Amino acid sequence: VGQTVGMIGGGQLARMTHQAAIALDIKLRVLAAAPADSAAQVTPDAAVGSVDSYEDLAAFAESCDVLTFDHEVIDPAFLAKLHEHGHVLHPAPHANLLAQDKLEQRRRLAAAGLPVPAHRPVEEPADAVAFGEAHGWPLVLKAVRGGYDGRGVWVVDDPDDARRVVHAARADGTRLLAEAHVALDREVAVLVARSPGGAALAYPLIETVQRDGMLHELVVPARVPAPTASAAVALGLAIAEEIDATGVMAAELFVSGGEVSVNELALRPHNSGHWTIEGATTSQFDNHLRAVLGWELGPTTMVAPAAATANIIGPADGSDPRAALPGVSGLEGARVHLYGKQPRPGRKLGHVTVLGEDTEQALERARAVVARVTGDKET
Amino acid sequence: VGQTVGMIGGGQLARMTHQAAIALDIKLRVLAAAPADSAAQVTPDAAVGSVDSYEDLAAFAESCDVLTFDHEVIDPAFLAKLHEHGHVLHPAPHANLLAQDKLEQRRRLAAAGLPVPAHRPVEEPADAVAFGEAHGWPLVLKAVRGGYDGRGVWVVDDPDDARRVVHAARADGTRLLAEAHVALDREVAVLVARSPGGAALAYPLIETVQRDGMLHELVVPARVPAPTASAAVALGLAIAEEIDATGVMAAELFVSGGEVSVNELALRPHNSGHWTIEGATTSQFDNHLRAVLGWELGPTTMVAPAAATANIIGPADGSDPRAALPGVSGLEGARVHLYGKQPRPGRKLGHVTVLGEDTEQALERARAVVARVTGDKET
Repeated sequence: VGQTVGMIGGGQLARMTHQAAIALDIKLRVLAAAPADSAAQVTPDAAVGSVDSYEDLAAFAESCDVLTFDHEVIDPAFLAKLHEHGHVLHPAPHANLLAQDKLEQRRRLAAAGLPVPAHRPVEEPADAVAFGEAHGWPLVLKAVRGGYDGRGVWVVDDPDDARRVVHAARADGTRLLAEAHVALDREVAVLVARSPGGAALAYPLIETVQRDGMLHELVVPARVPAPTASAAVALGLAIAEEIDATGVMAAELFVSGGEVSVNELALRPHNSGHWTIEGATTSQFDNHLRAVLGWELGPTTMVAPAAATANIIGPADGSDPRAALPGVSGLEGARVHLYGKQPRPGRKLGHVTVLGEDTEQALERARAVVARVTGDKET
Repeated sequence: VGQTVGMIGGGQLARMTHQAAIALDIKLRVLAAAPADSAAQVTPDAAVGSVDSYEDLAAFAESCDVLTFDHEVIDPAFLAKLHEHGHVLHPAPHANLLAQDKLEQRRRLAAAGLPVPAHRPVEEPADAVAFGEAHGWPLVLKAVRGGYDGRGVWVVDDPDDARRVVHAARADGTRLLAEAHVALDREVAVLVARSPGGAALAYPLIETVQRDGMLHELVVPARVPAPTASAAVALGLAIAEEIDATGVMAAELFVSGGEVSVNELALRPHNSGHWTIEGATTSQFDNHLRAVLGWELGPTTMVAPAAATANIIGPADGSDPRAALPGVSGLEGARVHLYGKQPRPGRKLGHVTVLGEDTEQALERARAVVARVTGDKET
């Protein structure tokens, strides 16, 4: 009773975690970069500080019983130091590192026999070219650290292209790895909640649709054959166990020719889990809080046969979806979630979830509401 | 975009309204009596002040675009003055008064031909006795103002009993009215959302179970014959129209021999509507916000065949239900909502909602979760 969960980062994940914390009577405190941050707007007593300052992190940690994360862009050395000073972090620094460092993550998962695309570190252009000659073109170059929402990922078609990307990366100090380009059937995500004691539950498999490198839409359950879905969920649980994830973890997976392999990991609530607010017995935000506090996890079952979520993206003309909301909410049984962000073309401003009898119907309705909110403008 | 809704009162209704406001990107500010109030704990920048101070109310009003209410215990003269000074109040003072003053409310509804129990003002003991002789015993004496959750209501069996209550009330300055005691089949509640422009939507009829004068459990849809349910819902809508309710209004009704009559009115989100958070397409808190801002209302349809809500009441031994929560949440698909209140025997500390295929099953599960949370102790 009365424990304070501190969330480092003040984005929409922290904002929605606060909604869950209210119902469970858990005190959530956020460390935001600015008072106008998404979560800082709606939580009392938000701390404002920089994750690039150990002093700010340490001062924040002193006010909290458990630390957890809204994002993973934090110096691993700072996390290790907080841990050494006796602060409780979920996920722990050794697990968090694997969401930050894609090369370490690939090595670790491969060593455990878990399926990852062929990959290698790239120190100089010749490394990328050699990898392309061995594994074929196009190949994918990724920033080892710091990439998200499509940033830090380059699909290169030939040696010249590869050399150009590697040169540019070296110029700004970005470390790279090369990966085989996977010919996709589908992209899916497994959402797992895992307690410090090792208890873990997976949500039903999520099918994601990316656009411009950003998760754009999702449906649940994923439209893949049952054996593929089982394999994907089992892989998600195996990863969580292997890396000692605590709290919610999202594993974004490739499905190619019936085989699954790991694309990205996030050790926190994730965009692919927003449908759980309405669509699951226990939302990802509830289960994240429950897990980081060592509480019994809540059931991850669906409350309807199908769910779909579509993002609300800032329209190209810079108009504000909030201005349309008075006339459209509640439409078609949709639940709208806005993140309190100033509109900007291409910016993720919110999402819409619809539950239904089947995924196609739910997705169609979610899209219709997004179109109304964004004024039917191309996003 | 960017309007601030000010809610006067910092209780659990304001707390849950904040959860709804976050998703809609509406800024909610509360006027709480103390920083530890239920809603003040979870909202940023809560104002602390007294509703008995016009200065506090006026200062709060200056910081808000629209004012609305978590409770109705506010001097009507203050509300009228705020209105005169150009502040926007929903409900407006003339409507709010009818939730405060039971005698005015009875007169107004009766004058409009709406069914209310036989009643009369009681100035002295003889008035109550004469009413009892005319309408039979027992009769009900009610405080004209200020009663809630069973306080301010006395069922009296005979003239001596009536004289004692009237004397005591006169001694502390409480005005009374007498009402015929209605032999109940059921108690039900109609929840209506109504916009300033007059658009109104009713939720499916709610069946309530009172205990110790406090709403204890509810199921939806109410287990009454269809014509009774239709009449009750129509009465709720007629009341909202007649009194010009804006925002959410709850009308608690008696069902007796197939006839419905008005028991209580609340012009705000209401305990009987908590099931709408999970069970309706649009929650009462969403629709209250939408209504007071003049937005289009959201659909009031159910998302499952049945819903049940049971209150979490402080156990007699003073133990804290929050201590049990880590081990029980998510049980049987229940959603738990705690209000952030210190436990005290008999105090309303939270509620549990369960959706299901039928009302009996949902209610049984909600009760089971409450029993687990309160340690199976009699509440």
